[in-house]
Amino acid sequence: ILSKRIVVLSGDGIGPEVCQEAVRALKAVADKFGHEFVFDYQLMGACAIDATGDPLPEATLEACRRADAVLLGAIGDPKYDNNPSAKVRPEQGLLRLRKSLGLYANIRPVTAYDRLLEHSPLKKDRIQGADMLIFRELTGGIYFGEKGRREDGSAYDNCTYSRYEIERVAHRAFQAAEARRGKLTLVDKANVLETSRLWREVVQDLALQYPKVLVDYLFVDNAAMQMILSPKQFDVILTENMFGDIISDEASVIAGSLGLLPSASVGDDAALFEPIHGSYPQAKGKGIANPIATILSAAMLLEHFGLQEEANSVKKAVDNALEQGVLTPELNARSPYTTEQVGSFIAYGI
Amino acid sequence: ILSKRIVVLSGDGIGPEVCQEAVRALKAVADKFGHEFVFDYQLMGACAIDATGDPLPEATLEACRRADAVLLGAIGDPKYDNNPSAKVRPEQGLLRLRKSLGLYANIRPVTAYDRLLEHSPLKKDRIQGADMLIFRELTGGIYFGEKGRREDGSAYDNCTYSRYEIERVAHRAFQAAEARRGKLTLVDKANVLETSRLWREVVQDLALQYPKVLVDYLFVDNAAMQMILSPKQFDVILTENMFGDIISDEASVIAGSLGLLPSASVGDDAALFEPIHGSYPQAKGKGIANPIATILSAAMLLEHFGLQEEANSVKKAVDNALEQGVLTPELNARSPYTTEQVGSFIAYGI
Ligand SMILES: CC(C)[C@H](C(=O)O)[C@@H](O)C(=O)O
Ligand SMILES: CC(C)[C@H](C(=O)O)[C@@H](O)C(=O)O
Repeated sequence: ILSKRIVVLSGDGIGPEVCQEAVRALKAVADKFGHEFVFDYQLMGACAIDATGDPLPEATLEACRRADAVLLGAIGDPKYDNNPSAKVRPEQGLLRLRKSLGLYANIRPVTAYDRLLEHSPLKKDRIQGADMLIFRELTGGIYFGEKGRREDGSAYDNCTYSRYEIERVAHRAFQAAEARRGKLTLVDKANVLETSRLWREVVQDLALQYPKVLVDYLFVDNAAMQMILSPKQFDVILTENMFGDIISDEASVIAGSLGLLPSASVGDDAALFEPIHGSYPQAKGKGIANPIATILSAAMLLEHFGLQEEANSVKKAVDNALEQGVLTPELNARSPYTTEQVGSFIAYGI
Repeated sequence: ILSKRIVVLSGDGIGPEVCQEAVRALKAVADKFGHEFVFDYQLMGACAIDATGDPLPEATLEACRRADAVLLGAIGDPKYDNNPSAKVRPEQGLLRLRKSLGLYANIRPVTAYDRLLEHSPLKKDRIQGADMLIFRELTGGIYFGEKGRREDGSAYDNCTYSRYEIERVAHRAFQAAEARRGKLTLVDKANVLETSRLWREVVQDLALQYPKVLVDYLFVDNAAMQMILSPKQFDVILTENMFGDIISDEASVIAGSLGLLPSASVGDDAALFEPIHGSYPQAKGKGIANPIATILSAAMLLEHFGLQEEANSVKKAVDNALEQGVLTPELNARSPYTTEQVGSFIAYGI
């Protein structure tokens, strides 16, 4: 019997709805396998600003530090987006949380599900069998560099990477490639950016330690095209923070729905699990949000605890929902199920 | 009778082959309409490094300054790409040229050609009718900011934008939107980057001067996804340098081939026309490079000279080649034509 403390940051928009279903799945796992999971709900994002003025209140950060893992729904609210002079933003909470917990590697699996090929905007022959793992560096680069305004009214954002920041996420990507099909593609813009040239140097150096991994290099503009032209060429993709943000959202079209894609953000002493979709405020409260991305994030959380069998039982239950068409409207327009129905079906199948 | 001086920078890889066909088309236009075009061939890129040690020799820059327009093939050679410590690179020539000539607006039309829908990796119903114009800022941002290494071995790239740099390209984009379907989408990452927030502010301010244009804002990660999910939503896209690089290459999948997409880079006193594809060194000398992107770039050059009828005759000849299937192998695998055959067919049709 395993006892674990999980902080749940439901966040904004559809975050609470999808988290509820992931927690339902985790409770079903606990029941079936006899574990004890304690759920500690905390505020982060716009809801935290509304309640406390701070997108990441100290209590939340403390709870995350003490937790065995963090489950996150989504954060963000349009009332902050079109107000460029807003001083506090929901996103700051997430960025600060990633940095404070040292979550330097964001891992995003992207698979073309056979049952859902018809839902992808891409032709079937291009995507059938596509299966990649994207490693996005998550605590460095331009998102975290110094930024501000100058007296002349201009704005700046600085991008910095140290060898160490690149090495630690690159090692994880190489190890994953070794355990998979043995290919690693570094996405950069080394023909223009100095940070990209450092990425390329470090990866070339590390490659010597992983002789079984074939390393490939793509400029980010070309990668954005190749992702659509021939996604099957990719096994493990490694890239810096902003390129990873763009490329992984783009890659989601392969799966047929953003609502299917989980992610894990890991560091040396902490781990956070979240769907890659956003807070989708327009859908809030309508019961149309797909909970599968968050439920699969919970499965990654179980794997992180070393509970492979438990994780597999969640994934099998998800496969079954896909198989039976127990899906939210974006994937089943004819006889759609609600968020809660999909979540209950999956929990029941565990 | 019009007399114009055109500098041709054939560049590297397939650059010379595709430029030859664009020049052939321009000569056909000169003959038919009684204009005089003088072609001045100059070196830039890897070929210029090989010949002079400098990717943009002074003589080339001087010739471009005196020219009425510049036609560029493509630059880049893999021998520089995987050598992160190379001191001179072909790309520096292009970046310096853009900056020296003040080519701040890169304009990339992307259309789904009915005849070529089957060649796109995207499903027909998603792309049929897609027609957008991407405005990429071309002389600012992270490509041109200070960059280098620090003593501790870390690398940095700085991104800066002034109000003025944003305004001048934004005005052009708004004007284009007014003349088209009246929609402008700003692509940024204003939830994280300070430069993006400045972009959003400036565009919000300018929007007041263009009351007929509907302005929309998308985060770049979402835009990378929307480009594939529903490309028909876009009319004019406006974005900063690096996001434009990524998004426009990605958008090329809509057309069915990168080999079809032209671009114009314009400033207040100079203009350069180039295909958006690269130097594709693997294809060099094989006669398989598609010259259409460069020929359509030449058509944009004619429009820039105010020669709309002439430009239309080039575009009609290109349409005819598409119609008749007189196309290079990537678009006509069964009975492919060579680069020169396609170019000659088009020139003949002018
Ligand atoms: C909300 C935002 C700051 C975040 C990011 O860009 O990192 C999101 O887009 C993501 O990908 O997790
Ligand atoms: C060659 C390179 C510097 C260039 C760029 O990124 O600007 C190219 O990719 C382009 O898009 O014109």
